[in-house]
Amino acid sequence: MSRKGCLVIISGFSGAGKGTVVKALMERFDCYALSISATTRQPRPGEENGREYFFKTKEEFEELIRQDALYEYAQYVSNYYGTPKAYVEEQLEAGKDVILEIEVQGALKVKEKNPDALLLFVTPPSAQELKKRLEGRGTETPEVIEERMARAAQEALLMNKYDYLVVNDQLDDCVETVHQLIQREHLRMTANQEMVAKIKKELSEMKGE
Amino acid sequence: MSRKGCLVIISGFSGAGKGTVVKALMERFDCYALSISATTRQPRPGEENGREYFFKTKEEFEELIRQDALYEYAQYVSNYYGTPKAYVEEQLEAGKDVILEIEVQGALKVKEKNPDALLLFVTPPSAQELKKRLEGRGTETPEVIEERMARAAQEALLMNKYDYLVVNDQLDDCVETVHQLIQREHLRMTANQEMVAKIKKELSEMKGE
Repeated sequence: MSRKGCLVIISGFSGAGKGTVVKALMERFDCYALSISATTRQPRPGEENGREYFFKTKEEFEELIRQDALYEYAQYVSNYYGTPKAYVEEQLEAGKDVILEIEVQGALKVKEKNPDALLLFVTPPSAQELKKRLEGRGTETPEVIEERMARAAQEALLMNKYDYLVVNDQLDDCVETVHQLIQREHLRMTANQEMVAKIKKELSEMKGE
Repeated sequence: MSRKGCLVIISGFSGAGKGTVVKALMERFDCYALSISATTRQPRPGEENGREYFFKTKEEFEELIRQDALYEYAQYVSNYYGTPKAYVEEQLEAGKDVILEIEVQGALKVKEKNPDALLLFVTPPSAQELKKRLEGRGTETPEVIEERMARAAQEALLMNKYDYLVVNDQLDDCVETVHQLIQREHLRMTANQEMVAKIKKELSEMKGE
């Protein structure tokens, strides 16, 4: 029986370490594929089309919007960013569990179109810890940290829309937990309709014997 | 933070080995409590009130029905059988994950009253394997086996109402899978409202600083 992949959306406060968790998942397990966003911004040195992003012109991107070929999109600083369906669906068909690391608003749009998508919210154990991690980076100004914390407070208002809450305290534990949560999705009744049909058919045939 | 237990309903075809799985879960992990049914049938030699069953008179049982003190009940061969809420709720409050091993109709009634209950359906890999296991017991007449298979075909019609499908091929794997499925319920957003409230409060307080 062919096993289709599972669509997984990982969000979380900036500083919660979700990027590190996703990177570790990709490195440790070969069942995952990372969704690649489309954008109209210029490639930066070293970036490759189809690796970091699918780079599109404004016209191409707006054509994707018209064709309903994106799960979600948004505009930041006059550039479009979005999640093309085609790449994700190819990977799912190939049996890969596809990970979308996106922010809360986009995540909820994807969930609306894909009710079976698994929504994971990654958080540090406390807001104090979140602030400490942002400060610990040493790269952010106090203003940026303030802004991130204010944004976290906004995002927290939508946390309840997620399926699972994953506390990122120890990275290794967190990666293992996320992996387990995703793999369990393959046991969902909705993901096993072929098996259910097979058993029903066998049972009804045996009754007729 | 106090952690409430999770209500778990395990059903499956007669011969799927769910009794063995439940027994192994109880032996291997101390986080589980088994729900105890109430019945009006006479205790058999060696059975103890509050261990195998809560033994009730017909009047006592009907009083439980009137008080809505049962998650579900049914009558077989002029005796009542049901699941008292009180014992289950005590165990959940004490942080135990409570396992109800009940048949499909009862399971769906419990889920109706407890939408957060986790519904697991245990099946052998195939109908052929189910028949083989029933025959292998060596204790059932061909008529009883026929009857069990016919009942399995009936139960299969409601399989889709369950949350997860667990294939019991190797017992140890199956027990571990069921354990993991139950434990991940504690990561559900709905089970972590205290943590969510704490983070929201901390974030909004830091904004005010």
